[in-house]
Amino acid sequence: MNNIDSMDRLTSAFSSLPGVGRKTAERYAYAVINMDSESVDAFARALVDAKHNVHYCKICGNFTDHDICDICSSRKSDTICVVKEPKDVIAIEKSKGYHGLYHVLHGTLSPLEGRGPDDIHLKELIDRINQGGVAEVIVATNPDVEGEATASYISRLIKPLGVKVTRIAQGIQMGSDIEYADEVTLSKALADRRDI
Amino acid sequence: MNNIDSMDRLTSAFSSLPGVGRKTAERYAYAVINMDSESVDAFARALVDAKHNVHYCKICGNFTDHDICDICSSRKSDTICVVKEPKDVIAIEKSKGYHGLYHVLHGTLSPLEGRGPDDIHLKELIDRINQGGVAEVIVATNPDVEGEATASYISRLIKPLGVKVTRIAQGIQMGSDIEYADEVTLSKALADRRDI
Repeated sequence: MNNIDSMDRLTSAFSSLPGVGRKTAERYAYAVINMDSESVDAFARALVDAKHNVHYCKICGNFTDHDICDICSSRKSDTICVVKEPKDVIAIEKSKGYHGLYHVLHGTLSPLEGRGPDDIHLKELIDRINQGGVAEVIVATNPDVEGEATASYISRLIKPLGVKVTRIAQGIQMGSDIEYADEVTLSKALADRRDI
Repeated sequence: MNNIDSMDRLTSAFSSLPGVGRKTAERYAYAVINMDSESVDAFARALVDAKHNVHYCKICGNFTDHDICDICSSRKSDTICVVKEPKDVIAIEKSKGYHGLYHVLHGTLSPLEGRGPDDIHLKELIDRINQGGVAEVIVATNPDVEGEATASYISRLIKPLGVKVTRIAQGIQMGSDIEYADEVTLSKALADRRDI
């Protein structure tokens, strides 16, 4: 084998990304060699900056460069949409069907994988509700087993606090992923939310 | 839209890779956020190092960190295998069926795209042959229109220099089914039949 140290290291780095095998990693590495130097330097800076600057918003748990994310600092709303992951926020924002606040759980309840209420950002949600000003919580976890279980757990937890709890409508295909839903379906599902 | 500068920049950087759309780039960016800092730093270093250290071997044109690649500096052979791209070298090396030298053209002749003999590393190949010690040149360009045209051009160029020129065999893929072979491959395989 030809021992090209730098290429091997870059290929290995790309291989660590999800769904990237050896061939794809090699293709990416060759593409990098063919980029101009400024683009590669910018790529490297983007990697390091993202890792070092991006952290959880102190209010909603979404990714942000600042203490508090742009949504939390710019929007006034009495509605909180609860999602599993930051990428779900992006998907819902793209649908343009929702203009309220968010809360990112960073996971769902999963007895099988040993993830209980303390392993996801549920306490932070309760704290937000206890601070007042919240009229409705829309639970927009994925329509799969864990997402449903998490939704009904949240419902039982929050309803006693006098807050309306709704579930994103099941217009989204069962077993699929919110991240990959088309924007019309996502909008419709938000509009059709129902009590749980 | 939630304006997460660092995430946007990283997603854009990943989008510049071949075959990577917005969704995939987002998935890669999230994976980076979830890596530990050392891995991300190593990734960024690998990018910059590959771009700045990797260049063409002065003899064969393959990628290398040094002046002359490991294959050229460690192997003695009177056979040169001519390929289109560095990744073809990797593929042939992996096959373990060849132990000679290589020559990377960095492209094929393409009148349609305006690539002539001066746009690929052909002169360097002729120089190597003129320095002597070359008995055979195996042309291992792809079996497509451009690859075939390049192969016959190289053959006409090199044969007068008293060097044997061969073409990598074309036919039915090993382990595949005759039933599913395309017609061009099948007729090529029949025409190139050999005694057993």
